Amino acid sequence: MRYYLSLIIFFSFKIIFSQPVYSPDKNLELSFNLNDKGQFVYWLKYKSHAIINESKLGFILDDNIDLSSNFKIDNIRLDSKDEKWATVWGEVDSIINKYNELQISLSQISSDKKLIITFRIFNDGLGFKYEFPNQDKLKYFIVKDELTEFALAGNHKAFWIPGDYDSQEYTYTTSRLSEINSSKGMNYDDIIVKSIPGDNYVQTPLMMKSDEGLYINIHEAALLDYPAMYLQVDRKNLVLKTHLCPDVFGNKAYLQTPFSTPWRTIIVSDKAENILASKLILNLNEPSKIKDVSWIKPKKYIGIWWGMHVGKYSWNYADIDNIKIEETDWQKLIPNGKHGATTENTKRYIDFAAKYGFDAVLIEGWNVGWEDWFGHWKENVFDFVTPYPDFDLNEVSNYAKSKSVELIMHHETSASVTNYERRLDEAFDLIKKYNYNSIKTGYVGRIIPRGEHHDGQWMVNHYTRILEKAAKEKICINSHESVRPTGLHRTYPNWLAAEASRGNEFNAWSEGNPPEHETILPFTRLIGGPMDYTPGIFQIKLNYYDPQSIFQVHTTLAKQLALFVVMYSPMQMAADLPENYERFPDAFQFIVDVPVDWKKTEILKAEPADYVVIAREDRDSQNWFVGAITDENSREFEIALDFLDNGNYEATLYLDAEDAHWELNPMSYRIEKKIVSKNDRLKIYLAEGGGCAISLIKK
Amino acid sequence: MRYYLSLIIFFSFKIIFSQPVYSPDKNLELSFNLNDKGQFVYWLKYKSHAIINESKLGFILDDNIDLSSNFKIDNIRLDSKDEKWATVWGEVDSIINKYNELQISLSQISSDKKLIITFRIFNDGLGFKYEFPNQDKLKYFIVKDELTEFALAGNHKAFWIPGDYDSQEYTYTTSRLSEINSSKGMNYDDIIVKSIPGDNYVQTPLMMKSDEGLYINIHEAALLDYPAMYLQVDRKNLVLKTHLCPDVFGNKAYLQTPFSTPWRTIIVSDKAENILASKLILNLNEPSKIKDVSWIKPKKYIGIWWGMHVGKYSWNYADIDNIKIEETDWQKLIPNGKHGATTENTKRYIDFAAKYGFDAVLIEGWNVGWEDWFGHWKENVFDFVTPYPDFDLNEVSNYAKSKSVELIMHHETSASVTNYERRLDEAFDLIKKYNYNSIKTGYVGRIIPRGEHHDGQWMVNHYTRILEKAAKEKICINSHESVRPTGLHRTYPNWLAAEASRGNEFNAWSEGNPPEHETILPFTRLIGGPMDYTPGIFQIKLNYYDPQSIFQVHTTLAKQLALFVVMYSPMQMAADLPENYERFPDAFQFIVDVPVDWKKTEILKAEPADYVVIAREDRDSQNWFVGAITDENSREFEIALDFLDNGNYEATLYLDAEDAHWELNPMSYRIEKKIVSKNDRLKIYLAEGGGCAISLIKK
Repeated sequence: MRYYLSLIIFFSFKIIFSQPVYSPDKNLELSFNLNDKGQFVYWLKYKSHAIINESKLGFILDDNIDLSSNFKIDNIRLDSKDEKWATVWGEVDSIINKYNELQISLSQISSDKKLIITFRIFNDGLGFKYEFPNQDKLKYFIVKDELTEFALAGNHKAFWIPGDYDSQEYTYTTSRLSEINSSKGMNYDDIIVKSIPGDNYVQTPLMMKSDEGLYINIHEAALLDYPAMYLQVDRKNLVLKTHLCPDVFGNKAYLQTPFSTPWRTIIVSDKAENILASKLILNLNEPSKIKDVSWIKPKKYIGIWWGMHVGKYSWNYADIDNIKIEETDWQKLIPNGKHGATTENTKRYIDFAAKYGFDAVLIEGWNVGWEDWFGHWKENVFDFVTPYPDFDLNEVSNYAKSKSVELIMHHETSASVTNYERRLDEAFDLIKKYNYNSIKTGYVGRIIPRGEHHDGQWMVNHYTRILEKAAKEKICINSHESVRPTGLHRTYPNWLAAEASRGNEFNAWSEGNPPEHETILPFTRLIGGPMDYTPGIFQIKLNYYDPQSIFQVHTTLAKQLALFVVMYSPMQMAADLPENYERFPDAFQFIVDVPVDWKKTEILKAEPADYVVIAREDRDSQNWFVGAITDENSREFEIALDFLDNGNYEATLYLDAEDAHWELNPMSYRIEKKIVSKNDRLKIYLAEGGGCAISLIKK
Repeated sequence: MRYYLSLIIFFSFKIIFSQPVYSPDKNLELSFNLNDKGQFVYWLKYKSHAIINESKLGFILDDNIDLSSNFKIDNIRLDSKDEKWATVWGEVDSIINKYNELQISLSQISSDKKLIITFRIFNDGLGFKYEFPNQDKLKYFIVKDELTEFALAGNHKAFWIPGDYDSQEYTYTTSRLSEINSSKGMNYDDIIVKSIPGDNYVQTPLMMKSDEGLYINIHEAALLDYPAMYLQVDRKNLVLKTHLCPDVFGNKAYLQTPFSTPWRTIIVSDKAENILASKLILNLNEPSKIKDVSWIKPKKYIGIWWGMHVGKYSWNYADIDNIKIEETDWQKLIPNGKHGATTENTKRYIDFAAKYGFDAVLIEGWNVGWEDWFGHWKENVFDFVTPYPDFDLNEVSNYAKSKSVELIMHHETSASVTNYERRLDEAFDLIKKYNYNSIKTGYVGRIIPRGEHHDGQWMVNHYTRILEKAAKEKICINSHESVRPTGLHRTYPNWLAAEASRGNEFNAWSEGNPPEHETILPFTRLIGGPMDYTPGIFQIKLNYYDPQSIFQVHTTLAKQLALFVVMYSPMQMAADLPENYERFPDAFQFIVDVPVDWKKTEILKAEPADYVVIAREDRDSQNWFVGAITDENSREFEIALDFLDNGNYEATLYLDAEDAHWELNPMSYRIEKKIVSKNDRLKIYLAEGGGCAISLIKK
């Protein structure tokens, strides 16, 4: 009897074993198996199309220990979830989390090591993660290699940047997977710190489009205590393999059981719009660790920042190229007369912010050390507490308070992270003393600890430590040059934004960002979280400042307005100089009106590297805002307003003028006003490299 | 006329150029030259004996840039000094600093880079350092190699340990220079973290004796912002070359002008005693940076420490091998019943300290994390603030205060230094809250930042940062597993002691320290500064605790007493368990009586690896104390008491009994009392591995 019972159990196992698991709407089909080498393989179909062919999973641990074959299945568990959760802030105010879950407990026959793989299949994609549970055979161990594969089913078009341990600041290349090669024809001279492992590595999120019109996006969710993932491309067989960011010894992660890896995510749809609308990555992250979130508020801000990029101001106070911050008598230095972060200038920015309803002012260059901060791999570079002689912390703090404007602290670390961490408590004491609410952090340069990378486990843990320290002190974080987001802002809602990409600033002093750049970013960088893209440049050509300058932002003015809707960020900058906004008050009105926190989001039209059209409803009112952007091609769109509520709205359309062109005539725009309702359709024209912003104010 | 004038100047230069510079007593003669390659060479004689033959100086900078040849002399400056300065604490209360100085300003003809070399010639040796002054051609740079040579004049006998980037914990080998080979016949299994660059590298201080009976000691002084120096031995040509501790990229030092290297020191004498008496290294260090030193006091201490080494106690509270300190509910763990650092046990130690006049109690294992702290290269290993459930910080603090006994905080970092630094401010808040006066720090394990070494520039800067933070908070430091001292305790008198060597503890669980070990250490490790050797073990054979144990301290009991005089440390431990001292109260009386701060020191007799006999006068009374130790040979000494003041002293002699032997009968001792005066001579017998301690109390 027992024999037959175990046979039944065995066959049941085998039956469960060989049954696929489906998404709630049944469109996605996940299958798995153990092959004859005992390797665990999975594959994925969408509406019967192959998305991922048979792909292996597993690890190599240190000292070359295989944990990828010779497995047996100990247990299979099925589960499902269907819930709705509220966001602290976001593109939407609530999110549905609906999936079927499959959890397989494996053990390796030879070693008795245990590994658990959990799959969650959503209607719009798949996420899976590994877990090393508490066990006898694994306590402290090192991951040398993660062997996760994504065997793609076609030579898809890919929108990619090189995998680089230290920088995300590349322009995107569009090519087929077989043609991915970061050594060919790229000009990466404007990226100072590059650590590219080879010419066939790409960064995630990786956006792809198949010849059949399927959209596939690969990324990760909940990156904690682990290095970031790149994808190594087998250009012949079209298999992508996980490549983790190493430390200086080639070790990827120093781990201790129990441990769960980040989720590897595959978002799939036959509609590009659904990729942008997907909440899969947020759903895979843990709920907020912060109990009281009342102090966390999205912010629209301005800053003493662009002025430095265009050469009007300097971060540094004096012009010296060799300074020791603790041995310098700052009062004795000769100021260069261009210092941006002066008390007086800051008060002017605070006045502007107060006048136009901006929440906060960022001040860069307020603290000593900028004279020779860059390019020396200098450890003792900033102290985060000593202001320059012309910056009065007390006066600035009181003035901001009197105008009900927040101050954004600036902590450029120069990638000297050991220095930052040892000074952190003192730096936070100062922040609290002078009433700052948030910090923009920066990691420009080569990382210290020397040998670590921006994307390695050590730095990932650093970013997390900063979030936790900030959360304890009720401070929000906007991190630049940090690892690209993976939805962790659900768990740490004080992580308002990150850069971790090639932002608007590149236009000021390099070949800049081509017009298609912003039509790609929502499909790539922003899949993991908001980006502080710093839009809103009105003075588009920089020869305004210096007649010799060849630089410009590759955009029309109307597109810069549209970006406030298209480039989602709860910490959103109106990046230009106040004086430029005052030259175009009618266009500026859109920036004044646009909110930074949303109740609803409709992705109206989108195609990677072509165009993006998004409508969003303000979280705090019934007003809607629309942003439409295009690449180097002009386009016409007809926008149905059926997302509106009943009743009338006053629509203000900020459009490219007919003669607008990102290069030839970028600052030419026109404004239309009309009363509309949900039954109306708006025809809009976008110039080359152009855009359109629409505010719909409920009447 | 101008031609002749410049000829005169030229020849004057050449005359100065070729003149040697002498020590004040003229015994030492330093010469220098630029050879035909423009390389700077120096050589040194002592009483006409060659000490250093023609030896080169210079550097290789990063990207393989030569800074060692093609020099010209821009300037030569002569100076001299004869001053006396008072010590905050020490072997003596005042020190004479008398030298002749020669400073040569060089510039490299091809590159116009500038280098200044300063020599100071004392009666007992030479120190020289490099300076990279402020200059156009050098601002930020990296040292790849320092090329300092010491071309020795003979195949001297050397007392050496391997050069190792991470450990000093070796037993010494005595051999000729030509035979130095760290791969031959050594058993280094008891040293866990080893980073030996090759078999012909030795650590400094390096002690040597020539066949003519000259004693030569090479070390460095004032190691700041630079890596530690080893000596690479050319076994054929007998030339030692500086080898600096690298970082993971093979870079030695990241520097910024102006910068001065540590002093390279050569102590020379025809009397071994003068090597031990030399104050050259202290004299080359900068005076105290701490203005108010009233809070800095040497300490005699006991501790909950040896009990763990002999297995009576454990550092850890529970027996688990996998713990995450921030996720553990410590109250729920099952205590192993052997935890040393309990409130009750600590109070017992405080009582003992109060009863016998010890200044302080060290408590190791008070804080969570010890369960799996070792061997995992674990970053988040200790938090330095959370006590175990059986250790009440408040109660312990109040109890110590009520008994006027100080507490010594324990910060074992497990070499996870990034973790220590980021937690430092919090750790110091706790120290101040609970009234601790000093910290014993430890760096057991592989350093994090991964890739750095205990002796590298980054860690040297860490040790300095700790001193500076501690000085600000009026805390003293006793650092274990840190870089070996270089006299910096003159500049930071709160650096009371360091281990940085193979201390007494090795006897508890390894083949231990041979009897000659302590007769070598004063000539090597202690040349740079005091050592927390932790003497005073009475229960010498460890089978007392565990009948199976084969371990013992390789000493007699009387030698353990003598070490309190011979092994100078202003933070001196009576290392054994209180209960063992209570078994031998008559012998223990010496430890109770012996002070830790001295007015005068007389090196009566000394020979490296054979014997050391030292007499010291208490700084705070007219009492004198003598310590005599021998190696594996028994010896007889006649000690003239002519160092005493006028009048009578009650002498108590703690001697090896006639049948004492370090291995066969180590705990056999006898005590003699007599009245003596300066005219008397004492005959003392030292057993094999034995010693003698004498207190001379002024009547």
